[in-house]
Amino acid sequence: MESRIEKIAVVGAGAVGGYYGARLAQHGADVHFLLRSDFDAVAQNGWKVRSLDGDFNLAPGQIHVYRQAEEMPKVDLVVVALKTTSNDQFAELIGPLVGEKTFILTLQNGLGNEEMLAELFGAERILGGLAFTCINRIGPGEIHHMDHGLIRLGQLAGGTETATAIAELFNRSRIRCDVLEDLRYGRWEKLVWNVPFNGLGAALDLSSDRLIASEDGAALVGELMKEILAVAGSIGVQLPSELISLKIEQTRTMGAYKTSMQIDRQCGRAMEIEAIIGKPLKIAKERGVATPFLEFLYRILTVVST
Amino acid sequence: MESRIEKIAVVGAGAVGGYYGARLAQHGADVHFLLRSDFDAVAQNGWKVRSLDGDFNLAPGQIHVYRQAEEMPKVDLVVVALKTTSNDQFAELIGPLVGEKTFILTLQNGLGNEEMLAELFGAERILGGLAFTCINRIGPGEIHHMDHGLIRLGQLAGGTETATAIAELFNRSRIRCDVLEDLRYGRWEKLVWNVPFNGLGAALDLSSDRLIASEDGAALVGELMKEILAVAGSIGVQLPSELISLKIEQTRTMGAYKTSMQIDRQCGRAMEIEAIIGKPLKIAKERGVATPFLEFLYRILTVVST
Repeated sequence: MESRIEKIAVVGAGAVGGYYGARLAQHGADVHFLLRSDFDAVAQNGWKVRSLDGDFNLAPGQIHVYRQAEEMPKVDLVVVALKTTSNDQFAELIGPLVGEKTFILTLQNGLGNEEMLAELFGAERILGGLAFTCINRIGPGEIHHMDHGLIRLGQLAGGTETATAIAELFNRSRIRCDVLEDLRYGRWEKLVWNVPFNGLGAALDLSSDRLIASEDGAALVGELMKEILAVAGSIGVQLPSELISLKIEQTRTMGAYKTSMQIDRQCGRAMEIEAIIGKPLKIAKERGVATPFLEFLYRILTVVST
Repeated sequence: MESRIEKIAVVGAGAVGGYYGARLAQHGADVHFLLRSDFDAVAQNGWKVRSLDGDFNLAPGQIHVYRQAEEMPKVDLVVVALKTTSNDQFAELIGPLVGEKTFILTLQNGLGNEEMLAELFGAERILGGLAFTCINRIGPGEIHHMDHGLIRLGQLAGGTETATAIAELFNRSRIRCDVLEDLRYGRWEKLVWNVPFNGLGAALDLSSDRLIASEDGAALVGELMKEILAVAGSIGVQLPSELISLKIEQTRTMGAYKTSMQIDRQCGRAMEIEAIIGKPLKIAKERGVATPFLEFLYRILTVVST
């Protein structure tokens, strides 16, 4: 497949989709946003972006906005930034945008998103991106990019040609981006952090610094990380055990960080339990890997989410 | 030992100690309160009690208040209503009040309180009481007795003579009270409820109704109850397994009840983790009873409390 990318759709234009889509449009890409709650605001006023990489506004005339996927054109690249709790709407929201040469890049959290897209649209066109960033929606059509912003992306079926072309486009658009040789490795490495800090953070309503403030807390976080390493290993993703202390030490530099899942809980919104906790637990069960901590975490999150 | 009870000391006069002590004083007992934060308010204005069993005030002249245990007289009965997180002060706070014929009744939560008192003062004089009640402190020297109020009490070393005498005194003072033939059975039966609802309620910051709102939640509560039954069985306290569904069904009638431990967490106060969760876990380990849920609960509570 050829990798000329000019026309881009953003599906799920919350904080993350809105920010990256707006950056691409700011630098000349032809960006089409599928919006729900923010449709009126963005149609009337465009996007207002505060960013540590430079504030900017996009006028309504610089972008295209839609309420329905059926009204949208086929594009070269679909950027999927839906919350994973809406993954059951992939066919309906993404299907109309996909032509023969369309690539699909999911920036979503957790496991299984690329695979779900591949089942619907074929693995060759699917890419996954890990967004290491902190972006909040501060009002209708208003976004605050507060920290970081790196995207690491890779091709589900292997190879790096398309990933490299997209990374170049992103880097030209002031989005720091690099290419993962092994997307699965990247996903699991990110999961080692996300499982304890999103999971325990939301279940116990504790920010990342509080979770590791005591030895007991760091030990519990470490137990969960150890289980994720074991599950990854069971499907051939070998993560080094040094990752555990490394990630805990990195977290100590982050201050009182609240994960998206903790914020979702505090705001009474759906939490991404399945993508971040449920999927690795399911793999553990299939592979016969003992993960008692992961299982308990999943159970208490299920209770908290009801 | 003879069971004439006229002079009573209340140690730890928070909501529970304040309420029961004030009731006893209202009905003619000679009650001596050991106070900390509320000393000035009670010394100046006495107790103000709102209660579903009848509001009343006690003037300063109707009671005795102290800041220091050393200033207090020896009494016939010490009522211990300290938070269990202060149990390391038993010797210092209770010792000065204990004469040859003094009984000690602890109304505290969880396990191990009677045994700690017995080590210091001898088992023969120790009684335990389970307070099924909902009493809040609403201001300095002001108490609101909102619901229930039954005390079930028993003698640590067996027998019922002293327990019966105290129960009669309490009942004459408009405190509903009955006698437990088997104090340990009563303690463990109460623990079957307290472990999941106090423990999970505080760790996950969920009220009792939310904990059992879903099947997943009721199942998790049930797993913890099952473990407590097994631990009780391992030391010869045989609780029927029907207790599990019975207690869950009873809880459904209680509305959005917040346990003391959840409220302590929300107010940033010390939680009674050791008395309610740590003690049964310790017994489980000593007896080789597998309690994975209890252990995980203990670990997450430890993290939440730091």
